[in-house]
Amino acid sequence: MRNFVIRGNLCWSESSDSIRLVPRGYLVCEEGRCAGVFETLPECYVNLPLTDYGDALIIPGLTDLHLHAPQFSFRGLGMDMELLDWLNTYTFPEESKYADLAYADRAYTIFADHLRRSATTRAAVFGTIHVPATELLMDKMEQSGLVSYIGKVNMDRNSPEYLCETGAAASLADTERWICETREKYANTMPILTPRFVPSCTDELLQGLGRLAERYHLPVQSHLSENFGEIAWVQELCPGTKFYGEAYDRYGLFGGGIPCIMAHCVHSGEEETELMRKNGVFIAHSPLSNTNLASGVAPVSKYLNRGLNVALASDIAGGESENLFASMAAAIRASKLRWRLLDQEVKPLTVDQAFYLGTLGGGRFFGKVGAFEKDYEFDAVVIDDTTLDHPQELTLRARLERCLYLADDRNLAAKYVRGKQVF
Amino acid sequence: MRNFVIRGNLCWSESSDSIRLVPRGYLVCEEGRCAGVFETLPECYVNLPLTDYGDALIIPGLTDLHLHAPQFSFRGLGMDMELLDWLNTYTFPEESKYADLAYADRAYTIFADHLRRSATTRAAVFGTIHVPATELLMDKMEQSGLVSYIGKVNMDRNSPEYLCETGAAASLADTERWICETREKYANTMPILTPRFVPSCTDELLQGLGRLAERYHLPVQSHLSENFGEIAWVQELCPGTKFYGEAYDRYGLFGGGIPCIMAHCVHSGEEETELMRKNGVFIAHSPLSNTNLASGVAPVSKYLNRGLNVALASDIAGGESENLFASMAAAIRASKLRWRLLDQEVKPLTVDQAFYLGTLGGGRFFGKVGAFEKDYEFDAVVIDDTTLDHPQELTLRARLERCLYLADDRNLAAKYVRGKQVF
Repeated sequence: MRNFVIRGNLCWSESSDSIRLVPRGYLVCEEGRCAGVFETLPECYVNLPLTDYGDALIIPGLTDLHLHAPQFSFRGLGMDMELLDWLNTYTFPEESKYADLAYADRAYTIFADHLRRSATTRAAVFGTIHVPATELLMDKMEQSGLVSYIGKVNMDRNSPEYLCETGAAASLADTERWICETREKYANTMPILTPRFVPSCTDELLQGLGRLAERYHLPVQSHLSENFGEIAWVQELCPGTKFYGEAYDRYGLFGGGIPCIMAHCVHSGEEETELMRKNGVFIAHSPLSNTNLASGVAPVSKYLNRGLNVALASDIAGGESENLFASMAAAIRASKLRWRLLDQEVKPLTVDQAFYLGTLGGGRFFGKVGAFEKDYEFDAVVIDDTTLDHPQELTLRARLERCLYLADDRNLAAKYVRGKQVF
Repeated sequence: MRNFVIRGNLCWSESSDSIRLVPRGYLVCEEGRCAGVFETLPECYVNLPLTDYGDALIIPGLTDLHLHAPQFSFRGLGMDMELLDWLNTYTFPEESKYADLAYADRAYTIFADHLRRSATTRAAVFGTIHVPATELLMDKMEQSGLVSYIGKVNMDRNSPEYLCETGAAASLADTERWICETREKYANTMPILTPRFVPSCTDELLQGLGRLAERYHLPVQSHLSENFGEIAWVQELCPGTKFYGEAYDRYGLFGGGIPCIMAHCVHSGEEETELMRKNGVFIAHSPLSNTNLASGVAPVSKYLNRGLNVALASDIAGGESENLFASMAAAIRASKLRWRLLDQEVKPLTVDQAFYLGTLGGGRFFGKVGAFEKDYEFDAVVIDDTTLDHPQELTLRARLERCLYLADDRNLAAKYVRGKQVF
């Protein structure tokens, strides 16, 4: 059933500063795309099957533009260190376990099941360096019903022996084989090039990945300017560069022709910010992670005002929860403390902006995704907020606002991805 | 049934820096108090009824040392303002509705039901200025099974006409009547004197409340040094004082002989901090609220190191959730951003400290409460963390740590207060 109608209180972002509300509206799906929103159902659609969700809220599916599947196992743990120590102490030992397919199967079954039950409909996901486990992850994500980019991670230097590929050539050969095995295998799951971050990748490896990106028209995801120690290290490792992002850019891995996600961008300077704007890089803002690892707070409203592409990310397991509503609230909160404690030039995020980040902001990486506009892909989440009981009347706007702070998977009554009902 | 045994993985704070873990231990309740924790059940207890909670975690009940019952209706709403505007725009209009007992009944039924289902076993709660609604709230809280202090709020100046008592004499007469009607009425519910904050209370009113505190041996709760605008206003209103806390202290409302809770203490200076230490004032740290209202972050680890009494608070509806686990994680997070963005002299809070704040830190306001030590009142919460599934083995310590970040009422299998099972 690809053509149908659902009815409820429709809420979506028209821009980063404006939420459109259509109480008890009709949302029409034709061939997996939104045919329109209507206050009165047009004659031509009256014969389509209609599901009326009553007083529930209906919002676009959420997009999680940066998270690590193998880290889901230790979500909520090991928050007592900053980035580089955290990687060596908690992350790398855990990721090495994914050489074992039986372990990967157990772990990725849990991960995919939680994502399936969440409000997330689109995701850009890091795997590990292991091709078999990454292909298994892609199988699981395909079964979950979400649309996702999945990355086999590349690391060939400054990594523990147990989690380091044996040279750039081997890493690139593995990667190309994986690309060829997966790029046409799935309906909803696509490979994405995934150099872990500059400290883990030799120039030869980054250069080779740039060539693969071009040859196979693949997008790229990585990390950028998250932590002071990391940034200082990159400066040491790449003496020829003026800023961190240049270390990706010189190999064609920083947007421009090739779609690109850079996670964090907490401490990006003027030149880096300007290059991200020019190249259309998508910033995956990860407020929970940047707070948990004491990295800092990205100046998100400044990025939005300058027209950069900004999206929201859980960054499992720097962030502890796959629930992107929690990341929306965390983004607002972190921006308020940044404003109060550091810099009153950059305004706190509003509810409208946080909602935009989690819907249209990240959806745009996937094309026409993240809003209820004509021809947008039909990703929708139905929210039953009756558990958030209250004695007074609440406007639809107020009910949506509360969801950012209080909703979780208990409140999800239904989820659609590309017009197909996931639950 | 006042004498019984429960078994499970016992976890409690021995101090602010140390969590004691007893895997599969026995916790014995005699007459509502803890008779001890045992790895092997002593002969003298083997005939008591035993409930084995298997692999579940058992922790002391949590204490929420500051929250506003009438604000629960707008939890998660109106976070776009700082304190004084927030009070005038959202809070005061809502609180005025509690003149209507039918409205109060609907609202407080919801509030008490959520608290009942939470991990909270003890609370210090603000009502409104209205005596009948506050007595209704006390009835509901008594029925909830929790132990709580409930305050009829005093406000006789700088408040909107619809929420301002008609002079200090009337406010004090109402308060004394309310004290006499309630102080011996309940098993688990007690009145607490509750001047809203200095800007809302004339000197005459504060002085009268000081006398009532002494006459009836009642504790006091109020707000202190939350927001820069508020602090400047207090300075203007009380020209004779050197710091905010002195405005309470000069009327005997700031600890010393009389137990006292001061919420927030975000911007307390050296003299105020020292007086709180000397007087044993309990600081109700409200990290979600202080972040949501962009007030700032209290230097909690500094307070702990100096031996002040510090506890945790949801501060509904400055904070949006009654789930105190969320406040524990929020306390750690806020302290990390304070460290990163403002002041590296004050260390971020640890998991041990956050757990302490929510258990023993606040429990101590109620006497021997908040730990599984001999003769402590038997408040316990049983946590089933199976929904937080994982592929690897986890230590008990790791499982407890995850609960701070991820547990909510879905994970609660049982709750006991003073030896009585609530659910």
